[in-house]
Amino acid sequence: MQTIRAVDWSSDGVAVRIIDQRRLPGEFVERDLATLDEICDAIRTLAVRGAPAIGVAGAMGMVVALSAFTDEPPARFRERVRSVGATIRATRPTAVNLPWAIDRMLRAAAASTNSPHVIVDALRAEATSIRDEDRAMCERIGMNGLPLLPDGARVLTHCNAGALATAGIGTALAPVYLAAAAGRRIEVFADETRPLLQGSRLTSWELTRAGIPVTVIADNMAASLMRAGRIDLCIVGADRIARNGDVANKVGTYGVAVAAHHHGIPFYVAAPWSTFDPATPHGGAIEIEQRNADEIRCGFGPLTATPEAAVYNPAFDVTPSALITAIVSDRGVHRPPYDFAPTPLPTAAAVA
Amino acid sequence: MQTIRAVDWSSDGVAVRIIDQRRLPGEFVERDLATLDEICDAIRTLAVRGAPAIGVAGAMGMVVALSAFTDEPPARFRERVRSVGATIRATRPTAVNLPWAIDRMLRAAAASTNSPHVIVDALRAEATSIRDEDRAMCERIGMNGLPLLPDGARVLTHCNAGALATAGIGTALAPVYLAAAAGRRIEVFADETRPLLQGSRLTSWELTRAGIPVTVIADNMAASLMRAGRIDLCIVGADRIARNGDVANKVGTYGVAVAAHHHGIPFYVAAPWSTFDPATPHGGAIEIEQRNADEIRCGFGPLTATPEAAVYNPAFDVTPSALITAIVSDRGVHRPPYDFAPTPLPTAAAVA
Repeated sequence: MQTIRAVDWSSDGVAVRIIDQRRLPGEFVERDLATLDEICDAIRTLAVRGAPAIGVAGAMGMVVALSAFTDEPPARFRERVRSVGATIRATRPTAVNLPWAIDRMLRAAAASTNSPHVIVDALRAEATSIRDEDRAMCERIGMNGLPLLPDGARVLTHCNAGALATAGIGTALAPVYLAAAAGRRIEVFADETRPLLQGSRLTSWELTRAGIPVTVIADNMAASLMRAGRIDLCIVGADRIARNGDVANKVGTYGVAVAAHHHGIPFYVAAPWSTFDPATPHGGAIEIEQRNADEIRCGFGPLTATPEAAVYNPAFDVTPSALITAIVSDRGVHRPPYDFAPTPLPTAAAVA
Repeated sequence: MQTIRAVDWSSDGVAVRIIDQRRLPGEFVERDLATLDEICDAIRTLAVRGAPAIGVAGAMGMVVALSAFTDEPPARFRERVRSVGATIRATRPTAVNLPWAIDRMLRAAAASTNSPHVIVDALRAEATSIRDEDRAMCERIGMNGLPLLPDGARVLTHCNAGALATAGIGTALAPVYLAAAAGRRIEVFADETRPLLQGSRLTSWELTRAGIPVTVIADNMAASLMRAGRIDLCIVGADRIARNGDVANKVGTYGVAVAAHHHGIPFYVAAPWSTFDPATPHGGAIEIEQRNADEIRCGFGPLTATPEAAVYNPAFDVTPSALITAIVSDRGVHRPPYDFAPTPLPTAAAVA
């Protein structure tokens, strides 16, 4: 089943092996990141991307960056643990999972003995746990979402919330992989996802590699496919989910949800429980990052918009919960009315 | 007011002067087409584009191509008129206005005397009439649409139905130009319009040149702008309008109409009366051209989609009349229920 490993240990265990996503879909290049600089550069330049995947890469990266210094005096080594953590954390300041993973690693180091060798072993075990938990999270999302994908389902997705965004089989695409593995006929339509084209570059690549039929479309073609009766359901990932179920995700998600609603097509969101943010009451409280105008003006080299024209280029949009049929997490399938209360955390039984 | 002439006579009157739209928005290059080969090449390669504009270019092109042969014997010259017309007509077999314009020119030649000199003069007068009628059509659409654009209106448009697509001030953009000329504050949001980016390349160029504020967005951002209350109305062009008011236009138009409907925002179509096709009962009877997959896979140069993935790339989609607030033509403002009966042709008074 698992055919893609976006981030993992190298075969000799001394480096972090990633798929260089900057080279996709033209070339499949795996790279072993063996130094702190290589780790940071790979995260910063989106060679490895997707919030879960960069959390795992950051945690493993700490091990790689510290392994060469186990002969240092314990006090100096502990200082190095902190500085390496801070350096990796700073590569993508807005990602949620990266600081979360680094904090976990720092706690594991603090709980260990004074010997640098022992600390590195503990960090290696913790990073491996983070990777394994991420994989298990993907599997659970897949299992929870599996009943939503009948045999023959034609699925529309937006952006890339697949194996390339995690250490496992993805979030939105996890049910797709499991349905295909279970022998169901599944067909995916992938929005190309302007401006950075994660759908055409990454989703189409990983699905074709897994033997799952995929058709790339420009974002503006999804609605007419729905009208033609060629889409049975939509499933997308999420960057943040507010307490009331409003979902921030890659820009364009909202338009897909509106079109699905208009055509009476189910619209699902799939995301790990760590994406749920009970402290944010609703989508209006989510700050939307504005990105560089050049992604629209000349993202692929040639100038494609008048330099004198203004450009609006938000990275995300917010889909109100009223348009979301259900949210699939590793804890279950959540249906409206949504209320992801801060405490106590719901159990799988309570929300399934 | 008229600042852009997409197609016109050259200053010495012996060639067809066009703006080379392949070079926009990077460079503003006017070219004088002085031979049959140059005319055909410019139409075929989209140096001049937009159904009304290529009709005018084709008619003027016949004059240019025939002027050098006025010393031929009358019979041979008449044969040349027919062959030149057939050659230009074949450059874009799917465009409506081009064969219509060529037919008009052939009728004008047939009605003239036997002298090649006199025939060329008649053809020049007919081509000038076609140009002038196109300009007048644009002005009438603009005047008819003007009451729909209040002071301060924030207008979303898709693709390019502006001055660059006609010999005049455009169709969908004609009311925008007239509203700005009348001193109204108008702001335009231009969908970039994947895959060929006519919105970002052409609409943004011609509006900035006219001093009208324009913001380029990726197509998938329009819905969230509407949700944010930043769009007051939508106006787009049309490639064909069925008897029941269903509209075929550049792919992506339907998604804009669905989003506008969801947000209660008026959605207008603007097109010349020649676009209305009473012989087509509804949108389902309109054949949708499928275009080359490479426009999606590598339209910017670099490969942006997996070669193994399928691609769906229709040139147009159909917006059902139920989503269209009104259709603006040179004959008036048409409102539902639409019934563009074949005969008798409605008069401006009857439909206004």
